Amino acid sequence: MDPTDTTAPGDLAAEAARRDAADPLAAVRDLFALDDGVTYLDGNSLGALPRSVPGRMAEVIEREWGELRIRSWEESGWWTAPERIGDRIAPLIGAAPGQVVVGDSTSVNVFKAVVAAVRAAQAAGTGAGADAGTAGHAAGAGAGAGAGAGESGAGAVRRDEVLVDAATFPTDGYVAESAARLTGCRIRAVAPGDMAAAFGPRTAVALINHVDYRSGRLHDLPGITAAAHAAGALVVWDLCHSAGALPVELDAHRADFAVGCTYKYLNGGPGAPAYLYVRRDLQPGFDSPLPGWNSHADPFGMESAYTPADGSVRGRVGTPDILSMLALEEALTVWDGVSVEAVREKSLALTDFFLECVAHHVPPGTVESVTPAAHPERGSQIALRCPGAGAVMRELTRRGVVGDFRRPDVLRFGFTPLYTSFADVERAARILGDVLADERRA
Amino acid sequence: MDPTDTTAPGDLAAEAARRDAADPLAAVRDLFALDDGVTYLDGNSLGALPRSVPGRMAEVIEREWGELRIRSWEESGWWTAPERIGDRIAPLIGAAPGQVVVGDSTSVNVFKAVVAAVRAAQAAGTGAGADAGTAGHAAGAGAGAGAGAGESGAGAVRRDEVLVDAATFPTDGYVAESAARLTGCRIRAVAPGDMAAAFGPRTAVALINHVDYRSGRLHDLPGITAAAHAAGALVVWDLCHSAGALPVELDAHRADFAVGCTYKYLNGGPGAPAYLYVRRDLQPGFDSPLPGWNSHADPFGMESAYTPADGSVRGRVGTPDILSMLALEEALTVWDGVSVEAVREKSLALTDFFLECVAHHVPPGTVESVTPAAHPERGSQIALRCPGAGAVMRELTRRGVVGDFRRPDVLRFGFTPLYTSFADVERAARILGDVLADERRA
Repeated sequence: MDPTDTTAPGDLAAEAARRDAADPLAAVRDLFALDDGVTYLDGNSLGALPRSVPGRMAEVIEREWGELRIRSWEESGWWTAPERIGDRIAPLIGAAPGQVVVGDSTSVNVFKAVVAAVRAAQAAGTGAGADAGTAGHAAGAGAGAGAGAGESGAGAVRRDEVLVDAATFPTDGYVAESAARLTGCRIRAVAPGDMAAAFGPRTAVALINHVDYRSGRLHDLPGITAAAHAAGALVVWDLCHSAGALPVELDAHRADFAVGCTYKYLNGGPGAPAYLYVRRDLQPGFDSPLPGWNSHADPFGMESAYTPADGSVRGRVGTPDILSMLALEEALTVWDGVSVEAVREKSLALTDFFLECVAHHVPPGTVESVTPAAHPERGSQIALRCPGAGAVMRELTRRGVVGDFRRPDVLRFGFTPLYTSFADVERAARILGDVLADERRA
Repeated sequence: MDPTDTTAPGDLAAEAARRDAADPLAAVRDLFALDDGVTYLDGNSLGALPRSVPGRMAEVIEREWGELRIRSWEESGWWTAPERIGDRIAPLIGAAPGQVVVGDSTSVNVFKAVVAAVRAAQAAGTGAGADAGTAGHAAGAGAGAGAGAGESGAGAVRRDEVLVDAATFPTDGYVAESAARLTGCRIRAVAPGDMAAAFGPRTAVALINHVDYRSGRLHDLPGITAAAHAAGALVVWDLCHSAGALPVELDAHRADFAVGCTYKYLNGGPGAPAYLYVRRDLQPGFDSPLPGWNSHADPFGMESAYTPADGSVRGRVGTPDILSMLALEEALTVWDGVSVEAVREKSLALTDFFLECVAHHVPPGTVESVTPAAHPERGSQIALRCPGAGAVMRELTRRGVVGDFRRPDVLRFGFTPLYTSFADVERAARILGDVLADERRA
């Protein structure tokens, strides 16, 4: 507790109640299964269950699979689910229809995007078609038709550098390294704050997290994208920790490629399929390293030569996992009538209020926020550095406040504006204060 | 109808009833939702729904996701599902535990296996370590430690050839071509019957379907594998159309890598995750092109350098799609107490009986089987070439017999020994005969 804090006991709880009563998103919480008394602040790891999902999944399993069986690929719309659900996600990330496709894991989509971006940047940067036909590729997808990045002006230099967010969620780094190895590129790790200045004539692509998974820092998508384009490079944005929590506006900022998961703020369920965004004018040149039969122009023609489909479908690979995908589709109905701008406004109010409650309830010197205070640099989580964070989170969970622990010493609290209440926020900070006070006494 | 056929009307139906009464697997059919009067012979495209799946999925969604939420990754065993379910599939394909992991689509697993096989064959064929460290790869997985293929004796020749089954299901060919392009190899299409003779000192790997998806021909896994090893090459087997229908015996024949889907004879549900088999002694050298955080030795360490896990886990990539995966796990319970040998015995009896019924019921000259008559060359389907096959299958479906159509002129009937009865077989052939006779009259 901050000794200079003059807030009376109970004031913050009363304030939380006032804010919840005035919250235009308050009713959305009722769409989720959250009536067990637990304060759930881990929606940035696994979103809560939308109440309509169980009924829909019973129908999918018993009627569509159990009775219609194979006919459901056509009659129940299974075959077109990846692009249909992609179009359902599109407005949440500021994308016009036809640019987002759902399927595979985030890691696999990072691989598609980074390899395709390297190819597009190389084709654009050294003259269209310079790299085409060097490896017996059957389709006409190798040349850089439509790679929309600005020309670097240094046509003689091969673009062979992949920049990676130095603080990235690990899978992005591992996959980018594999993509670089397979395309003859080298990797350079760059702090996101230094990224805009790091693009050079050899840079093919940068892979950056929009919001850092650990600190919750929001990176400058418009600025970094513009800097990349000025240098003739492309950017792959990882939206795992931003989509569904704040406006992304991919189209408005001419983002090139983006990937994201759907089981955090989009509440699609454990391991729900990820998505891939390819900006429309980059689609004709999108040369995927995973050209499965689902991305063929005529998948049931069963042709031995690969001819890629047009549009977002080109990002598909194998047979989509329908159960996980249709659970996601149903989960997305909670967004009906909800604007991302309203979500962002509440998100900032929740995180501000959490910091205020922590300052009041938690013994001084026990925690330190590593999430930026400035709104333009903050995602929808608060990360607190805390000695013994692992044990503290176990005790918090035992007392009904669920966040998560990230090694070595970070308590991570995610705020999902669709269902997190201000009362949740106040309670979490209060119980965190209790746990830390008890620990200090022990 | 064959004019020399002396079978009396009704004899075949009586024979079907006799065989069903004597079928040791007859009771297994009751474990499936198949009481709608439809004769379902498309289990080689989408397996029928096991009755216990809806209840289990309600529990997974409402209890594990809805109530336990993030705790289920540990408490409900979500995190270890890929290798646990892999071990459940292992006995069905003749693999000892610890060599099979579930996740991603078949196409994505083909990509992992072919790239890793090229790397392993190159490392083994040119001396261990020859290719290591050329591309900035952080982990020690590049060298051919444990590549178990025989040495070719021609250490100076780079293995840069990928052989592909010339009649392959298209996705395998597309993905193999991408894998070859990314690893600097070239592709050569070879008919499976010529494959054993095609291996040479430049062959790195062959990708072959165990059973051809169109004709139902069963290829010689032991012979082709032995021929590959004698030439210092490796083989990736695609088991989509054999696993669950006949004994595969991967370990016994020292198969190197295998992939397969789980939504056909394994009844895992639409788009259920695929699996990857890596023979145990090849695992230490398994150098995946998709090294996601799930295959890291310490996934929650969040380290920036990739250190691959040991064992089958190395085949994992991103967060597993839990809903589809746990539906598959439940679906596999129908195999309790069932031997693959009994399944094979019934499968051959079903396909023989179908050919007998077709010979009796179908107007002469209207169809021709393209599935081998010899048992050692037959999978668990019968493919009939038939003019106007697309329209014929639509009419069959309308009359309650579901198979599928493969362009340009193939009627495909799959026989799933766990639930297909001899009565189904007789009815399907009889109604096919009716449809073709009506068509002839029209």
